[in-house]
Amino acid sequence: MPEASDYFGAPVGTPTEPGRFVRIDELEAYELAAGLLTRPLLGAGVMASFARYEPNSEAPLHAHVEEQLFVVLDGQFEVELNGELRTMTILDAAVIAPWVPHRVVAGPEGGYQLDIFCPPRQGLLDLIAARGDDEPD
Amino acid sequence: MPEASDYFGAPVGTPTEPGRFVRIDELEAYELAAGLLTRPLLGAGVMASFARYEPNSEAPLHAHVEEQLFVVLDGQFEVELNGELRTMTILDAAVIAPWVPHRVVAGPEGGYQLDIFCPPRQGLLDLIAARGDDEPD
Repeated sequence: MPEASDYFGAPVGTPTEPGRFVRIDELEAYELAAGLLTRPLLGAGVMASFARYEPNSEAPLHAHVEEQLFVVLDGQFEVELNGELRTMTILDAAVIAPWVPHRVVAGPEGGYQLDIFCPPRQGLLDLIAARGDDEPD
Repeated sequence: MPEASDYFGAPVGTPTEPGRFVRIDELEAYELAAGLLTRPLLGAGVMASFARYEPNSEAPLHAHVEEQLFVVLDGQFEVELNGELRTMTILDAAVIAPWVPHRVVAGPEGGYQLDIFCPPRQGLLDLIAARGDDEPD
């Protein structure tokens, strides 16, 4: 039976690239809807995007092929998932399988939440690439 | 060029399973080291694990094949990555490629951080499976 003491194994592989330190609030921000700004942190196979909602702002009902974990970091949201509506606050989370429709509306104080997309969400990769194209040399 | 208004597309695929709501502090907890307790939230291709460190507790230097995003949610940590030591506080993050050695030591007030593993970390899956085996029918 595995024991927790086995969990911190010594390195036996070779890193493919170095690790890097990041400050979330210095990441590039993308406005997804009025009052909804997200800052994606991109790994190789996964993306974590930190979304700040102004009071009463909304991510309308939508769905996508990427799996998503939704985690509330601050504030309050009304979240619709499978047609079920819940009020979510700090440390409430949702597991959103591919193509499950969901909708998020921030409360009157706004809110802050983390989206984890696996694989990285193509719609955000497209926005990142488009901004890169716009940049002057 | 993509626009943010394209981001919230209508569902065009069929969900493979329903979404589900989760309360992080009701997830099963696993002690990885003295004073270090983590609560994994398992998706299909990704795992988010919420780790609470008692004051001065430590994840010793280790490495693993899974990619990891490390996000500080509260408190303070000393983190070693590529042999570089940094003090990390709320909303500091690190991108840890496969097999990059890292070490985490909580400050005198302890701390709370989120690990995102892609794919789900096998060492944690083993602990989850072992506990399942231990449970009475």
